[in-house]
Amino acid sequence: MSEFNAKDHPHRRYNPLTGDWVLVSPHRAKRPWQGQIETAATEQNPSYDHSCFLCPTNTRISGDVNPDYKKPYVFTNDFAALTADTPFYQRSDDDLFVLKAERGTSRVICYSPDHSLTMPELSVADIQNIVEEWIRQYKDLSKTYNWVQVFENKGAINGCSNPHPHGQIWANSTVPTLPAKADQAQREYLAKHGKNLLLNYAALEQQSGERTVVENEHWLVVVPFWASWPFETLVLPKAHVRRMEELTSEQQAALADILQQITIRYDNLFQCSFPYSMGWHSAPYQNDAGAETSESIDHWQLHGHFYPPLLRSATIKKFMVGYEMLAETQRDMTPEQAAERLKQQSPVHYKQQSK
Amino acid sequence: MSEFNAKDHPHRRYNPLTGDWVLVSPHRAKRPWQGQIETAATEQNPSYDHSCFLCPTNTRISGDVNPDYKKPYVFTNDFAALTADTPFYQRSDDDLFVLKAERGTSRVICYSPDHSLTMPELSVADIQNIVEEWIRQYKDLSKTYNWVQVFENKGAINGCSNPHPHGQIWANSTVPTLPAKADQAQREYLAKHGKNLLLNYAALEQQSGERTVVENEHWLVVVPFWASWPFETLVLPKAHVRRMEELTSEQQAALADILQQITIRYDNLFQCSFPYSMGWHSAPYQNDAGAETSESIDHWQLHGHFYPPLLRSATIKKFMVGYEMLAETQRDMTPEQAAERLKQQSPVHYKQQSK
Ligand SMILES: O=P(O)(O)O[C@H]1O[C@H](CO)[C@@H](O)[C@H](O)[C@H]1O
Ligand SMILES: O=P(O)(O)O[C@H]1O[C@H](CO)[C@@H](O)[C@H](O)[C@H]1O
Repeated sequence: MSEFNAKDHPHRRYNPLTGDWVLVSPHRAKRPWQGQIETAATEQNPSYDHSCFLCPTNTRISGDVNPDYKKPYVFTNDFAALTADTPFYQRSDDDLFVLKAERGTSRVICYSPDHSLTMPELSVADIQNIVEEWIRQYKDLSKTYNWVQVFENKGAINGCSNPHPHGQIWANSTVPTLPAKADQAQREYLAKHGKNLLLNYAALEQQSGERTVVENEHWLVVVPFWASWPFETLVLPKAHVRRMEELTSEQQAALADILQQITIRYDNLFQCSFPYSMGWHSAPYQNDAGAETSESIDHWQLHGHFYPPLLRSATIKKFMVGYEMLAETQRDMTPEQAAERLKQQSPVHYKQQSK
Repeated sequence: MSEFNAKDHPHRRYNPLTGDWVLVSPHRAKRPWQGQIETAATEQNPSYDHSCFLCPTNTRISGDVNPDYKKPYVFTNDFAALTADTPFYQRSDDDLFVLKAERGTSRVICYSPDHSLTMPELSVADIQNIVEEWIRQYKDLSKTYNWVQVFENKGAINGCSNPHPHGQIWANSTVPTLPAKADQAQREYLAKHGKNLLLNYAALEQQSGERTVVENEHWLVVVPFWASWPFETLVLPKAHVRRMEELTSEQQAALADILQQITIRYDNLFQCSFPYSMGWHSAPYQNDAGAETSESIDHWQLHGHFYPPLLRSATIKKFMVGYEMLAETQRDMTPEQAAERLKQQSPVHYKQQSK
């Protein structure tokens, strides 16, 4: 019998943040594809679109008029998934019909006035404006809510319903399912190992370099050992940072730089505006906990996730269906292979190269 | 303050099979959609396609020739995600780099020789042939593996890479992430309540009728109280059945009938070939457990899941992105509203109605 080799043999890897496993089938990407072909995101948008709900000075569907904003602009979603005044209610019949009313809010953050510029095309200074706005939002929303979810859906293929570069911020009273798992996993890891899970992980990844895509003085971006999506990455601070609002101005500037670096590599990979969902996990708040019951958050490490849907090209995505929905996430190449392909990309955006 | 009403107010519901919550935002489906529009699956395929890898007598990419089959035809996937002879291996460095080699196999099941007929268009007798083949596969694969995942990806929009109606059967040595959770949840429920989780649930749903879509003597199909996907359904036996191979021939015939009933409603909802991932959770096997360590499987109840991606129409799907990937699954109408819309559909397939 031959010896095991992760590049050739099917295996499972464990995600220490969720407790889930992923099935890695390294050579399956070679199979023929007679399935769905997407439209490549290669068209150039204008800098201003008069029919866009998010461009400066335009009227939204609610009738509200956007200001002539120059920096990131935040407003409450006109069709919010969460409401601040939901009446309290809960039931739990037979442990089968378990329901709780939920309070929260959903906001939209327009990245810049320019309709045509996605994150990799913004200047580092412009990205730093976004980081600063995220921090303001964390500070504001944490007064009321226990969880603040900063995220971006980029690309029509990825469910983005408006092409103007923007992200969202949803805040809830209750810590949602996935961050609750990350909270528990980090707490248990610290208790067992006496080390912070993601700080330890970042140090080990930095040493190995095998899965590192880009790096600067304060940040590391890796394809995590347990990645689900083909080109998934994890953005990690090198120092212990529990919440985004704890970042020093140096770390904030370095974050803007690393976000530009990783998103440029993404766009270059398939020479298209690379779709993804991106978002942050920052320690939760404890607005309803008394002084005695409030728990330490030292087990937390701030981290960002990029979940891009593409697999083979700008037009062929990975479908998380069938086996993935019913049994377990499955990926068609190793995380090391994905990291290798990403790190080979030019640091110059492909649109700039052709100029 | 107004009183809580699940039809109007955001709330969270608990999935007792996975331990995850889902955020229900009843009125969000009203928001404008400037996002991606899919191609509706309304074209009529021919009964035989000479370029199809799955039609009888055609040559597959591997060079193998399909027999002139008349009943469901099963073969090992030419690009299997799992292999039977993977060398053993495992590592677990720092509880962060946890990896285990995995053995298994992937098979394809062509539902019938006819390239044009998806499940809702097959006769009940033809569907019963599929059920019988599933049972043969469980019996065969359980000799070697501990988990057998029967599933179908239907529709190009849902990652199906070949339009010939077919399903898949993947079998593993290790029980995968999601069935492992379902196993634990059912075991704990029985221990706590002295009742089988899904048998109790089916009885309560049958009484209420609120979420029931179709029903016959032996089976119940409901939009579960905790549904994630807009038109998700759960197929439940009315009696205690731990594994698919325990079904009596009467229950098998009734299963074929109920599968035809639910899939016809699905096609009728948006007058298209309704895409979904469908699959079965049947109690795992214990090939490696000795007689003393082997555990009872009485906490198990066989059940089928339908996970359809469509939300608003044949061309607008629900995207499980951003908030869903980073925080928690979110749905845009209540399960009760979805059940209501499905149960209003005609029991006659729309293509038959126009004849
Ligand atoms: O096996 P297929 O049909 O080629 O591929 C499809 O089903 C698999 C199992 O659910 C998924 O991993 C793939 O992403 C999907 O495209
Ligand atoms: O809020 P949007 O952009 O209209 O909608 C998008 O993001 C939401 C949050 O991730 C998802 O629930 C929707 O399915 C997706 O289409």
